[in-house]
Amino acid sequence: MSRKIVLTGDRPTGPLHIGHLAGSLQKRLELQDSCDTYIMIADAQAIPDNVDDINKIRTNIFEVACDYLAVGLSPEKCCIFIQSTIPQLPELAMYYLNLVTIERIGHNPTVKQEVKSKSFKNGVPAGFYLYPLYQVADITAFQANFVPVGKDQTPMIELTRDIVRKFNDTYKTNILIEPQAIYSKLNKTLPGIDGQKMSKSLGNAIYLSDEEDIVIKKIKKIKSDPLKISVDDCGDPDNVIAFTYLDIFDKDIGVVNDLKNRYRQGGLPDRVVKDRLIEVLLSLLKPIRENRKIYHSNRDQIYEILKLGTNIAIEKAKSTLNQVKSAIGISYY
Amino acid sequence: MSRKIVLTGDRPTGPLHIGHLAGSLQKRLELQDSCDTYIMIADAQAIPDNVDDINKIRTNIFEVACDYLAVGLSPEKCCIFIQSTIPQLPELAMYYLNLVTIERIGHNPTVKQEVKSKSFKNGVPAGFYLYPLYQVADITAFQANFVPVGKDQTPMIELTRDIVRKFNDTYKTNILIEPQAIYSKLNKTLPGIDGQKMSKSLGNAIYLSDEEDIVIKKIKKIKSDPLKISVDDCGDPDNVIAFTYLDIFDKDIGVVNDLKNRYRQGGLPDRVVKDRLIEVLLSLLKPIRENRKIYHSNRDQIYEILKLGTNIAIEKAKSTLNQVKSAIGISYY
Repeated sequence: MSRKIVLTGDRPTGPLHIGHLAGSLQKRLELQDSCDTYIMIADAQAIPDNVDDINKIRTNIFEVACDYLAVGLSPEKCCIFIQSTIPQLPELAMYYLNLVTIERIGHNPTVKQEVKSKSFKNGVPAGFYLYPLYQVADITAFQANFVPVGKDQTPMIELTRDIVRKFNDTYKTNILIEPQAIYSKLNKTLPGIDGQKMSKSLGNAIYLSDEEDIVIKKIKKIKSDPLKISVDDCGDPDNVIAFTYLDIFDKDIGVVNDLKNRYRQGGLPDRVVKDRLIEVLLSLLKPIRENRKIYHSNRDQIYEILKLGTNIAIEKAKSTLNQVKSAIGISYY
Repeated sequence: MSRKIVLTGDRPTGPLHIGHLAGSLQKRLELQDSCDTYIMIADAQAIPDNVDDINKIRTNIFEVACDYLAVGLSPEKCCIFIQSTIPQLPELAMYYLNLVTIERIGHNPTVKQEVKSKSFKNGVPAGFYLYPLYQVADITAFQANFVPVGKDQTPMIELTRDIVRKFNDTYKTNILIEPQAIYSKLNKTLPGIDGQKMSKSLGNAIYLSDEEDIVIKKIKKIKSDPLKISVDDCGDPDNVIAFTYLDIFDKDIGVVNDLKNRYRQGGLPDRVVKDRLIEVLLSLLKPIRENRKIYHSNRDQIYEILKLGTNIAIEKAKSTLNQVKSAIGISYY
């Protein structure tokens, strides 16, 4: 039986942080052993938001690739590639446009919400409005069976399944695969050290590339339970980001539960919790950071790996596109 | 000084008729001698309307190519290619999507009107809504200076010019060319023999491939001036399609003016006008039909010519795409 196929990836808008590690990278390390795993650095999708700062995308393609390799994603096990180097993706998107209404594409709640929050003054950039459709091309080009996503991305998977069904029905074929979502075990996205969404501009993310002293400094900034004024006060671990992190990253559940109990009862200084978190995170991040430095100093090697990925991805996407064009009835020579 | 570039073409939804001959083919014969002329058989653009009958598109790619060659468009002078064989076109379209709002694309009056007339019950197919943007990609891919169009297509040229300016401004470059429209000398589209728009379904078009007896039969069907009941009545040549055709195709203006005067004065049977039209059209169409038969029986040759065109068109489009990606800042290796 052939292996299942997974498509996953990131927009190259910043280096990866512990939120990515918990939310997606660790899952990918499992997937690369059991599935044909395509990991896409989605530069084309990042353009609409970054027209004025394309250099950020260029830089972060390299940074994100280093992050992937540093955590153990291996070019021998998975295909890491840059989205814009695969010409078949926009070509597939063009054919899918005939199978869906412009209104249906706009009915994506994520797009609707982002349109609202970004408050585009002069109208919605078409590239932004249409990105769910281009995601359908990304997913189907690689015949992905599984797509690891957050709950908020369910509508994108639904749109993909709709278009796949419509394509297969219209052209009486079964060449396109209906993908399934794989949801992260995390109930929600890992918050930054201030409890808000991790973001570069807020300076609240712990990056895989952060040096030890930076990691320590960031952990020390984490606030305690606001209702816990003095050491002796009872505290609620659910209100403390340090515990949220320990829940995710500390493999010794016993230690974490013990700390939580003591925190609830009062008398446990936040410093002790943070010291445990520092110990856990430093030991987790040390090999990643060390690997990362080696990759980071070998720029040519990284681009060789990406180029290899491009070649493999193009082969797969080309095969799908050829099947799609044959099914439509427009391959001529 | 390098030659100017022209992009033109047709949707392969039916064989070409005398309306095409007067409206565009004769102009192209001039252009191929003075400009680098790209003639695109726009199959991808024809898909949204013909999802259920792709075979019509396949068939008519061949028929239209035969028409081109039969009238004297020559693969040695111009590049005849099939749109869907140029992967750079949808790729360019994807990048242009970032420079225009979804609302702006919808503000095309042709799209608005067609949306209205086709009364899409379940919403507007996205491929249909977006085709003006794909036309921008078609035009700019070949760096076209000139695009022969009807007056109704002015908004498409305007959208192209807008996007070209936006691209060049945004990326501080001048690689994309603002095209200019070349308008047909015809004031309006040539009507069918019944005065309505020429269309296959109405059976009112005279095709370049029509045999002599068919041409004669169709001309005989042309109605006289409805106010001219008997031969002796005065008639208005402006109300008679046969005169509309003579105005376009009869090179001897003296003969036509003489016929018109006699028609106005009364006493000229419609038969005489039609006989003149038969003479003119048969002599015009005879060499085309004969050429066409030869090409039509050499299927392999036609596809060789189209393949050659594809190769030339890909080279040009690839060069543009590479410049576009460099200007955006996303060429990596």
